[in-house]
Amino acid sequence: MTANPGVQRVRWMEGGGPAADLVLSSRIRLARNLEDYPFPTLLGPEQGQEIIRLMEGVTEHLSAAGLGRFTLLRMADLSPLDRRVLVEQHLISPQHARNAATGAVILNDDRSISIMVNEEDHLRIQCLLGGLQLHEAWAVATRVDDVIEAHVRYAFDDERGYLTTCPTNLGTGIRASVMVHLPGLVLARQAGRLLSQLGKVGMVVRGLYGEGTEALGNVFQVSNQITLGPSEEELIDNLIGFTRQLLDQERSARERLYRENEDGVKDRVMRAYGLLTNAWTISSEEAIRLLSDLRLGIDLNVLSHVRPEVFNELIVLTRPACLQKLAGKELDARERDLLRARLIRERIAAALRKTTQ
Amino acid sequence: MTANPGVQRVRWMEGGGPAADLVLSSRIRLARNLEDYPFPTLLGPEQGQEIIRLMEGVTEHLSAAGLGRFTLLRMADLSPLDRRVLVEQHLISPQHARNAATGAVILNDDRSISIMVNEEDHLRIQCLLGGLQLHEAWAVATRVDDVIEAHVRYAFDDERGYLTTCPTNLGTGIRASVMVHLPGLVLARQAGRLLSQLGKVGMVVRGLYGEGTEALGNVFQVSNQITLGPSEEELIDNLIGFTRQLLDQERSARERLYRENEDGVKDRVMRAYGLLTNAWTISSEEAIRLLSDLRLGIDLNVLSHVRPEVFNELIVLTRPACLQKLAGKELDARERDLLRARLIRERIAAALRKTTQ
Repeated sequence: MTANPGVQRVRWMEGGGPAADLVLSSRIRLARNLEDYPFPTLLGPEQGQEIIRLMEGVTEHLSAAGLGRFTLLRMADLSPLDRRVLVEQHLISPQHARNAATGAVILNDDRSISIMVNEEDHLRIQCLLGGLQLHEAWAVATRVDDVIEAHVRYAFDDERGYLTTCPTNLGTGIRASVMVHLPGLVLARQAGRLLSQLGKVGMVVRGLYGEGTEALGNVFQVSNQITLGPSEEELIDNLIGFTRQLLDQERSARERLYRENEDGVKDRVMRAYGLLTNAWTISSEEAIRLLSDLRLGIDLNVLSHVRPEVFNELIVLTRPACLQKLAGKELDARERDLLRARLIRERIAAALRKTTQ
Repeated sequence: MTANPGVQRVRWMEGGGPAADLVLSSRIRLARNLEDYPFPTLLGPEQGQEIIRLMEGVTEHLSAAGLGRFTLLRMADLSPLDRRVLVEQHLISPQHARNAATGAVILNDDRSISIMVNEEDHLRIQCLLGGLQLHEAWAVATRVDDVIEAHVRYAFDDERGYLTTCPTNLGTGIRASVMVHLPGLVLARQAGRLLSQLGKVGMVVRGLYGEGTEALGNVFQVSNQITLGPSEEELIDNLIGFTRQLLDQERSARERLYRENEDGVKDRVMRAYGLLTNAWTISSEEAIRLLSDLRLGIDLNVLSHVRPEVFNELIVLTRPACLQKLAGKELDARERDLLRARLIRERIAAALRKTTQ
């Protein structure tokens, strides 16, 4: 992994983990609220600041827990650009980025843990790992949850479980999600049907950047909808089960595609590679579409000399805020398209496996 | 120049000559008929064969004239594929390729000279050189004409000059033409207007493969229409004059394009390069379009490491008959698209200038 000058290291973007060819990341998010404060919707700015100071104290305990060094960042202290970078890296929500009055985020050094303070709930504990690692992410999130709970009083009801602002999060307060790359199902025109069926079994499907965004680069976020009733482990096993089915179908779709039209698939992949490594200017949409084709080609061994993680890295780094962070200044659309093309050329060149050692 | 296995060396495809960046080739064609035979339209097969035998005798004299070794090929002895290859190399006309009964062609070894026997006229003497070399081509064609005239009796009228089947060729029997690459004027949407104006001054504009074909790859053939009246030298000077004007306008259009949209031009060129060097399958139309962009990029020094002649070579070699000749067998459209892509990848790789000597 090459360093990202100007953009912090984010663990999930480095790839790796089980089923990393299809699963970009696994995320566990816990919604927690503090007993002694009204829900954020009713919270005044003073109380919001109190919660931030409270969590600032907890940050030290978190750093002592062996999960990396934690830092609390106030939205008010971050530039709008830095906040948008955090959104693009999936570390805070777009709404949270806009909450300069009371918003804060606690991050560990490899960004595998992010705790939003005063988002829709007082605390949103998130653990984000590469590949299909929901149980691992759950274990980490639980440890973070335990450290915090040792120092604050959570709003908890013996019957209803963790109390949350939105009733859909009531109970376990957990949301588990996976980010999956499904170009085979999209190319075979099966993705829409399959993913809409997931809705019937309590799963939600979104695009790469959350609700309302289309599936850029054939990347989908699948998450559990239900939080009340089953235990956390059951919810996670459930999502893992559905994800495995989806992965099987994706693999079958890829095999069939390749078997039925090997030349067509190779052509698609090689053209994407040719354009990505040569284009002088490129839009965000075209880049992510071609990067998806590139990654498919790497997974199918059509392009065996390119390291796959370049996809995970570039689908984030080519977003507008990350680009401007890399440039160290605001860029207009034209400048972004030029820098995006250059960044892609350079990163793919750096991601070539050396043929001689 | 790498050898073309299966496809003979053709001098004009090797590029070079004055203004070779814009002028692919210069052609002089002389229409001649034999006094003792009716025009080809009225010629019986027996008489056609007589003319071929007569010219077979002349072939030896041509070989002795210091213009290379000449060979007479009967259409009847060539496979349909071999005839189509000659058409694609601009050595015979499509109509002539279909004349198995009485058609023949005399070629010298570098294919700079081709003499069609029993085409629309008994003899069509053609000299084809790279770059803007109309006077040079005229000098060669004249020498060929003189050698032939020493051994046959031309149909000639003191008042009307050389007698030809079609009155438009009457007089000098000469047609001079240049094949020019005008991507700048096409991109600036000025080509149509400029070229249609040429019609008003006795010039004819056609596409890369003669009448009725569109300007594939932004390559246009410009030739004189008038053969009666001015002398051969005047006709040639006339065409050179118009060509030079066209070249000036093309160069201005390129400079303006590059000045006004450098990034756009670079992007167009680099994408063409990326696709040509990576595509796994490619149609004839897409190939020639991208090859034109590639050549523009070489001329503009955007792509300084690719030798320009690869364009001249590939716009012919990627045509269906040449491809099949290279493959040594008939190919369906799918197979041609695959071979075309491979050939382009290989030839561009071979056309890279070595950075270290």
